[in-house]
Amino acid sequence: MTEAIANLNTANPSILKALKCKECGAEYELKATHVCELCFGPLEVKYDYNVLRQSVSRATIEAGPNSIWRYRQFLPVATENYIDVGTGMTPLVRSHRLARRLGLNKLYIKNDAVNMPTLSFKDRVVSVALSRARELGFTTVSCASTGNLANSTAAIAAHAGLDCCVFIPADLEAGKVLGSLIYSPTLMAVKGNYDQVNRLCSEVANTHGWGFVNINLRPYYSEGSKTLGFEVAEQLGWQLPDHIVAPLASGSLFTKIYKGFQEFTEVGLVEGKKVRFSGAQAEGCSPIATAFKAGRDFIQPVKPNTIAKSIAIGNPADGVYAVEIAQKTGGNIESVNDNEIIEGIKLLAETEGIFTETAGGTTIAVLKKLVEAGKIDPDETTVVYITGNGLKTQEALQGYVGEPLTIEAKLDSFERALERSRTLDRLEWQQVLV
Amino acid sequence: MTEAIANLNTANPSILKALKCKECGAEYELKATHVCELCFGPLEVKYDYNVLRQSVSRATIEAGPNSIWRYRQFLPVATENYIDVGTGMTPLVRSHRLARRLGLNKLYIKNDAVNMPTLSFKDRVVSVALSRARELGFTTVSCASTGNLANSTAAIAAHAGLDCCVFIPADLEAGKVLGSLIYSPTLMAVKGNYDQVNRLCSEVANTHGWGFVNINLRPYYSEGSKTLGFEVAEQLGWQLPDHIVAPLASGSLFTKIYKGFQEFTEVGLVEGKKVRFSGAQAEGCSPIATAFKAGRDFIQPVKPNTIAKSIAIGNPADGVYAVEIAQKTGGNIESVNDNEIIEGIKLLAETEGIFTETAGGTTIAVLKKLVEAGKIDPDETTVVYITGNGLKTQEALQGYVGEPLTIEAKLDSFERALERSRTLDRLEWQQVLV
Repeated sequence: MTEAIANLNTANPSILKALKCKECGAEYELKATHVCELCFGPLEVKYDYNVLRQSVSRATIEAGPNSIWRYRQFLPVATENYIDVGTGMTPLVRSHRLARRLGLNKLYIKNDAVNMPTLSFKDRVVSVALSRARELGFTTVSCASTGNLANSTAAIAAHAGLDCCVFIPADLEAGKVLGSLIYSPTLMAVKGNYDQVNRLCSEVANTHGWGFVNINLRPYYSEGSKTLGFEVAEQLGWQLPDHIVAPLASGSLFTKIYKGFQEFTEVGLVEGKKVRFSGAQAEGCSPIATAFKAGRDFIQPVKPNTIAKSIAIGNPADGVYAVEIAQKTGGNIESVNDNEIIEGIKLLAETEGIFTETAGGTTIAVLKKLVEAGKIDPDETTVVYITGNGLKTQEALQGYVGEPLTIEAKLDSFERALERSRTLDRLEWQQVLV
Repeated sequence: MTEAIANLNTANPSILKALKCKECGAEYELKATHVCELCFGPLEVKYDYNVLRQSVSRATIEAGPNSIWRYRQFLPVATENYIDVGTGMTPLVRSHRLARRLGLNKLYIKNDAVNMPTLSFKDRVVSVALSRARELGFTTVSCASTGNLANSTAAIAAHAGLDCCVFIPADLEAGKVLGSLIYSPTLMAVKGNYDQVNRLCSEVANTHGWGFVNINLRPYYSEGSKTLGFEVAEQLGWQLPDHIVAPLASGSLFTKIYKGFQEFTEVGLVEGKKVRFSGAQAEGCSPIATAFKAGRDFIQPVKPNTIAKSIAIGNPADGVYAVEIAQKTGGNIESVNDNEIIEGIKLLAETEGIFTETAGGTTIAVLKKLVEAGKIDPDETTVVYITGNGLKTQEALQGYVGEPLTIEAKLDSFERALERSRTLDRLEWQQVLV
């Protein structure tokens, strides 16, 4: 009964202070704006941690709803009228079989492939953005998306009764297109890549009075990703992990998990410690990994060409902050090619029973690469973030997972097929051994 | 950290008494068997409710893991070594927009479309069945499936490191086929309908020493569905609803939600009351609805022909028990055609932001039909069960959800498309009004 419970939590607007420029520190009112007028730096929500420290405890959080809204006071919503559809509190699974395969002793999988309602971590940021959009008086909401964000915005707007217009690149996977259309938004398929979609949306945001979750509402929106840090800390028994591995698209998710850990430390909910932050990109769109490896403090935009479409952002808004975090925490940013991505999807499915999309395949493949390079200690408590569901990117696996054995509904037909499959397995083994 | 927490819960084998025939009451050891040797009736797990009453409370449950295993002592597993991948504790969403559309005041949606790991309620029954299979010494597990069960068995077997061979009808939806193959089971696609697959599997169960979750392990497996009753009661604040609407395939889910409510009442966790049980079938496979309407106490098997493949069981094992429960609780069993099913999927998506598969479309369409027929009181606390995810049955919506508006990455291209879509909307409205 998520909504009824949620409404019992008291909002505390005195915690929310301002929007603050990440670069020059200039402060702004908590409106729909995302760029500093003085230095063009990105704006971020500023909280009063002294008030927060007095008003939250492990117990108050545990007594909250079974969703991201248990962390309500760390989120930029001023009223109690937020949208709770049960988003968040996805499982943190202790890995045994994948861990053994990789030679890790304390591996956990944070599984947002089953997030509510649209099976990706985007439901977290959209729940927050649309709640804030409603407070700010928007009646039409929008986004520039690589797919998952469009699904989530369309779904949660439908739930909240907001008008919705979402923008995607025209070449997206069928599951992501249907996964938006089903909620009846206006769906614009733009001939171009995500970066072109994003530029168009910035123009539309200037000419229409719409709330774009990842443009003019971006400071609120991005805060939702902190809950992926909060939940992991709570699910580990109010402790921070030693090392996290997450996918990098715009870089925002990465920086906000970091901010989540910092805030929990700041208000005394967990003991502070250095957590290593490692990031994953697809080789066909790896501007952040390239900058990290070159030791550069700026990002050279690229033109994406990879099956990992949901993380294919060639000009990542928060790329430099991601590089900075990886550097200062002793983490790494690595990339893998499309074949490795597919192998990553299969490896996670076969060992843990979790079917992730190409972004998750990228993250698992990078995890493997980092372990093999000795960049993850086997005894580190390592959390790998799976951010989306494999049913949305089925095309990527075409030709890579085999076919069912088709049989008659008769015992002898079954027996013959079983024998054949076992012989094939043996032959494959012999080939491996030769 | 689901597994670590789970292991802290103490198993209590003294609660588990025997397998008991539902018809003649004969008792059997807790082995892999499902049919009474005396009367061929189905076997069910028997518990000692006196011991249960002493050992569980609302507090002990609330302190348990955030999964079905918080109800561990009501489940037929004898050791603490059960498989917890975070299954269950899916959101119970208070409906506002669908409720208003239908004229209901207290409607809730139990959303197993985001169940972990494979997005259907089957993860509940499979988690229980494979835990028990492992206790009984099986190393290969299997099932006869309409799709969701194959997905779930393959995934959880992969997680647990069990060998797996699953059987499906050869004409299943692509998402359900890939959704099994990805976990690398042996996948047998049988030329025939589910009932033929099921008969073949009964033969295989007799000749191979495999644990078939819904055949020789069926008494354990089916108990997992009780958690859909337990969770709703807990999420409503330890109260039973007035009316539930659930899909009917074999009828097992329906009878086990009923058993769940009864057990919670029996041990004093909730106050007892009559809950009305209403069931949903697709017209193209509605043997239980037909029996209910005719007032018959037996089921006439049918040959399925519907897009709702996951509930297309022509010879439902627990059909008579489902009819009995609907009758004695004052509920109804209704069927809807394929068009109504698609409209049901769209209605739920557009009003609540939840994308369900054809089975869920059936349930929503039946809910609507029952409301329109005056068979649900607007003030009843009504819970509708959504049991699977729409991304698995995308074919069913082909041609029913429109297309994106394809545009150039330019503002004027966008403005023209927006104007066109608004004109179209107006024209549609004019057609409606004419």
